[in-house]
Amino acid sequence: MSDPSLLPATAAARRLQDGALSAADLAEAFLARVAAREPELRAFAWHDPAAVRRAAARADAARGRAGRPLGPLHGLLFGIKDVLDTADMPSQYGSPIWAGHRPRADASAVALARRAGAIAVGKTVTTEFATRHPGPTVNPRNPAHTPGGSSSGSAAGSAAGFFHAGFGTQTAGSVIRPAAFCGAVGFKPSFGTLHRGGMKVMSESLDTIGVIAGSVGDCALFMAGLTGRDHGDPDARPGAAPRLGVCLGPTADQAAPETLALLDRVAAAAGRAGATVTELRLPSAMDEAMDAHPFVMNMESAQALAWELDHASAQISPVLRERMDWARSQPPAALDEARQAFAAARAAFADAMRPFDALLTPSAPGEAPEGLGWTGDPAFNSLWTLLHVPCVTVPAGEGPKGLPLGAQIVAGFGQDRAALAWAEWVRAAAA
Amino acid sequence: MSDPSLLPATAAARRLQDGALSAADLAEAFLARVAAREPELRAFAWHDPAAVRRAAARADAARGRAGRPLGPLHGLLFGIKDVLDTADMPSQYGSPIWAGHRPRADASAVALARRAGAIAVGKTVTTEFATRHPGPTVNPRNPAHTPGGSSSGSAAGSAAGFFHAGFGTQTAGSVIRPAAFCGAVGFKPSFGTLHRGGMKVMSESLDTIGVIAGSVGDCALFMAGLTGRDHGDPDARPGAAPRLGVCLGPTADQAAPETLALLDRVAAAAGRAGATVTELRLPSAMDEAMDAHPFVMNMESAQALAWELDHASAQISPVLRERMDWARSQPPAALDEARQAFAAARAAFADAMRPFDALLTPSAPGEAPEGLGWTGDPAFNSLWTLLHVPCVTVPAGEGPKGLPLGAQIVAGFGQDRAALAWAEWVRAAAA
Repeated sequence: MSDPSLLPATAAARRLQDGALSAADLAEAFLARVAAREPELRAFAWHDPAAVRRAAARADAARGRAGRPLGPLHGLLFGIKDVLDTADMPSQYGSPIWAGHRPRADASAVALARRAGAIAVGKTVTTEFATRHPGPTVNPRNPAHTPGGSSSGSAAGSAAGFFHAGFGTQTAGSVIRPAAFCGAVGFKPSFGTLHRGGMKVMSESLDTIGVIAGSVGDCALFMAGLTGRDHGDPDARPGAAPRLGVCLGPTADQAAPETLALLDRVAAAAGRAGATVTELRLPSAMDEAMDAHPFVMNMESAQALAWELDHASAQISPVLRERMDWARSQPPAALDEARQAFAAARAAFADAMRPFDALLTPSAPGEAPEGLGWTGDPAFNSLWTLLHVPCVTVPAGEGPKGLPLGAQIVAGFGQDRAALAWAEWVRAAAA
Repeated sequence: MSDPSLLPATAAARRLQDGALSAADLAEAFLARVAAREPELRAFAWHDPAAVRRAAARADAARGRAGRPLGPLHGLLFGIKDVLDTADMPSQYGSPIWAGHRPRADASAVALARRAGAIAVGKTVTTEFATRHPGPTVNPRNPAHTPGGSSSGSAAGSAAGFFHAGFGTQTAGSVIRPAAFCGAVGFKPSFGTLHRGGMKVMSESLDTIGVIAGSVGDCALFMAGLTGRDHGDPDARPGAAPRLGVCLGPTADQAAPETLALLDRVAAAAGRAGATVTELRLPSAMDEAMDAHPFVMNMESAQALAWELDHASAQISPVLRERMDWARSQPPAALDEARQAFAAARAAFADAMRPFDALLTPSAPGEAPEGLGWTGDPAFNSLWTLLHVPCVTVPAGEGPKGLPLGAQIVAGFGQDRAALAWAEWVRAAAA
């Protein structure tokens, strides 16, 4: 048999479930790839191969005793963004303030992944508290470029085949953007799908836990394993074609030429494959909500970091401290107004989406920027995050520097299964 | 001067601000009362008098150096429900699973209280993870009765004068009910007012941090000090009288005779004082939302406790384990439907509230039940919690056993200042 770590998670899961593949053998294949490429990529904030081997051996032994797999994710490998607590690994939130921090418990999402049988490969690099100040991770397609952020290690590690799926979190564009930059699939579910207990939450109104994986089907598999919900089988193409709204959104002027060309190309391919493709102009409530996003994000984050600001501000990066100072200089009522703008936009979006099954929109302005000092702009992500709607980025060609571009599919609130299904439909149509 | 710990927080704050009262003298007066009554009341999960003295001395010294108070809560004393993390005290969540747990940081709400100059007296007793299984605290008005829960220690401690204000949290009725049972004032702000970072969150859709204090004005003072918002001056009675809706709500049949009589009496007194008093029948969406409350509360809590259930279930009380087993037996989609019922109820309530400034409704079915095995029923609280609206309980007489009864004032979402102002107006009218 060829290298089992090259199988999609969906295929590996079938072999693990029926016993044709052992967790130990699969883990070894992944560990070999990590050993080869991690010195260059630096996707992990913590990685202990011996612990991975022990967990895989425990999974095999438990399977042998029980005569059945531990759960739907039995033996699959996952990475954990280091804003999620782990009982057996340090949880350092990308900040020296939390160096060596050892939580007593796993975050809810981590515990649910392990209950389903998945094996943690390690903690993946996050920017500082999932904000702007970057970590050391590089883009696996070109190490001179950022992998994006804040879920830098989960995106780079997923694209490099270090695990089947990595947890990300998104306050502005921290799942979709790095996944697109690295050529992976990123899925931000509807707000509230995965419980944030044991996460270093910054913005309570925005932060959403998601997954980054090698395919839409693999994202669906993990989400179903974590939540017990039916996320469908995106690889089984729906009989129908979608009513697709094409939409650049309030930040249209920030799209690079290759992004505009990409959107045209994907929309045309979707049309040829049977989709009804219509341009959507978003209601003006979206512009007001976009303007409100920095208030909610930064004012809530400044509350989240109250202890750090008062006790360890010298260990906070200048860029973050500057934003927190700005947030604390705003009138508190600005936060209420901003949240009201969000609520109005959600109501308006629900109406605007009625004629559509899904929207097609850019995942990012363009390719991953050069350098590691900046993880890129969430201009094409903040709106969907504040709307609380499910988003998927799928790989859709390359830009002028040969780096991946993504196309983003967005659906209405709660339509997570549809978002995944239509994302795979669009990806296949444009492939 | 008489005992300064008998002053309302608003009065003590004025003396502390202008330097007429030192933090050290005030803290000593509170410590004396704690020393006398804590052995009976058992309000604290952690209390270290020496640490309180050190903090008060630091506050006085800082004031001396700066020539001004640390902040608007300078020198005031507060209690911290033990579901909120503290860097300098154990944080045990009312569960043996977390015995001796020492967080690295303060919860956001705790850090903000300290930034404003307040001094922590200790960690107050919570029921197990703020759910049903009780702690050892007794009702300060009659130790044979429960103080209510889950914010048992903050309610009992506030009523016994152990601190000016205690943090509570509410998922169903955990701020309002114990405050009413102990004869204190409880305030649950609009959902999202205080950031839950560093809290052991159970239900992300419901959990709300609030305060319990000796008067409405003291609640407003603390909330303003924590948030920087203007929570008004409830002691300055508004010139106008409110348009008051009287409403027993979907659980009307659970009100004890003394509660029905109380509501009649308070409504009549408000009318005599100039209020327009109208009976309000709530839309039917409220009944559906009430039915949905156990699903959201228990299904989200089961997610929150995923690690505890998998690694330490023998240390979870039978009553909580039974509820978590029930939650895990429900179809995952039941949670989506329940959240939709909440959203529908919020929209319907916003409409129903338009003719009113505030609602008058019971704080609890009746007096605090006898015994310590059960903290009482949140029948009159769950609805307002799931609606995310601000609620205040004010003392309003006694029941047949001589225990306190409360009257609850509810306002529309975001109308926190109005809720406090009208609560004080109604309390004074009925006094």
